[in-house]
Amino acid sequence: MRNIKLTIEYDGTEFHGWQKQPLQRTIQEEIEKAISKITKENINIIGAGRTDRGVHAKGQTANFYTFAKIPASKFKLAINSVLPREITVSESEEVDEGFHSRYSATGKEYSYLIYNNRVRTSLLRNYSYHIPYEIDINKMKNASNDFIGTYDFRSFMSTGSGVKDTVRRIDSLTIKKENNIVKISVKGNGFLYNMVRIIVGTLVDIGRGKLEEDKICYIIQSKNREHAGHTAPPQGLYLEKVFFKS
Amino acid sequence: MRNIKLTIEYDGTEFHGWQKQPLQRTIQEEIEKAISKITKENINIIGAGRTDRGVHAKGQTANFYTFAKIPASKFKLAINSVLPREITVSESEEVDEGFHSRYSATGKEYSYLIYNNRVRTSLLRNYSYHIPYEIDINKMKNASNDFIGTYDFRSFMSTGSGVKDTVRRIDSLTIKKENNIVKISVKGNGFLYNMVRIIVGTLVDIGRGKLEEDKICYIIQSKNREHAGHTAPPQGLYLEKVFFKS
Repeated sequence: MRNIKLTIEYDGTEFHGWQKQPLQRTIQEEIEKAISKITKENINIIGAGRTDRGVHAKGQTANFYTFAKIPASKFKLAINSVLPREITVSESEEVDEGFHSRYSATGKEYSYLIYNNRVRTSLLRNYSYHIPYEIDINKMKNASNDFIGTYDFRSFMSTGSGVKDTVRRIDSLTIKKENNIVKISVKGNGFLYNMVRIIVGTLVDIGRGKLEEDKICYIIQSKNREHAGHTAPPQGLYLEKVFFKS
Repeated sequence: MRNIKLTIEYDGTEFHGWQKQPLQRTIQEEIEKAISKITKENINIIGAGRTDRGVHAKGQTANFYTFAKIPASKFKLAINSVLPREITVSESEEVDEGFHSRYSATGKEYSYLIYNNRVRTSLLRNYSYHIPYEIDINKMKNASNDFIGTYDFRSFMSTGSGVKDTVRRIDSLTIKKENNIVKISVKGNGFLYNMVRIIVGTLVDIGRGKLEEDKICYIIQSKNREHAGHTAPPQGLYLEKVFFKS
């Protein structure tokens, strides 16, 4: 049996997130339906991570097992031909039998787009977080350094996820501003439920002056979600890349 | 009576273009309905130029006459509050009675986005022209210089428009590539029907090797639409800015 790895881009606007669920349009289900159509098998795919409703991906990763004899690199075009235009398989390759998109992943990179302008945006309305007030990027940059390292990030996790081990490692967190667009990029070995969106919301609260820029260490140590900032909305978030041992 | 000038951004994906027409959803009609709701008048707006179905704008300009006493700069937020999210008034100001968005315009700037990658894009599917084959940017840049100047651009006009004077002046035409994205920007005193899209299609045909890079002068002089390249699709086109005497 062959194990095929896919790299996937999607516009999450009109989906109820990645994970399959009854009566909802999800990215996982659309991809499973598409592959099943191609291979005439009943396909289940394993995603590297779930993304919420409205969240986008440029480099989501998933794998599936198949008996189909299609050359691995041809899968992408075959699957794209039956997928809705909102989902694109950008790469397909054959991997070891033991490869597992979730358990084999060693890290992830997310990016987050903020549209910082008094007036809203139409072209980026589904692809960014509109912040109409001024935010101090330097304060946000200063605060961002305190996220780097291995910590218990329980304060930056939404309740309702069953995860027990809340220790994660953040390797980098960068903030760039160009005209009205602020791009926040964060890399780490894994992320808790809503962790990137709460980090972004906390940085925005610091940029706005609602939280002090030297409070990140204290918030982490408190292990209390209420001490962190708000949860930034989903439409600014992009799963950029999933990393694996090479 | 006051004359109010609006600067307008829109996502043209779900509209049948700018110009009002029966039974179709158009940008002009949505804006007129919105302003009429605010001012309780029967409002007609004058746009700087029509954009086709699927074409976007960052800096479309329009003006309208009103007796309403709302401060000019407040119009934008008032109108946005009743407009669909796909249209945003980014600026509103009071102008001389004689100001006319079309006749007072001295020039326009358009940009065009190409997504040049073997595999399609989901995130930019409505915002770029997907070209899956290789295009030679240097050939396109060489050819672009021959568009600069004042010429009869009849070869770069779609049939069906009633325009008699087909002489236009192009001031600049730049091509930039960053990763998979090619951005073409063009400024001029005015553009014929589909002119930017035919210029882009011709440049793409040159980049692909279907047309030679030194043929632009010949194509212009021939005054024959059949000698130019294909018409690039609407979703890559953005009306960036309308210029006026200051």
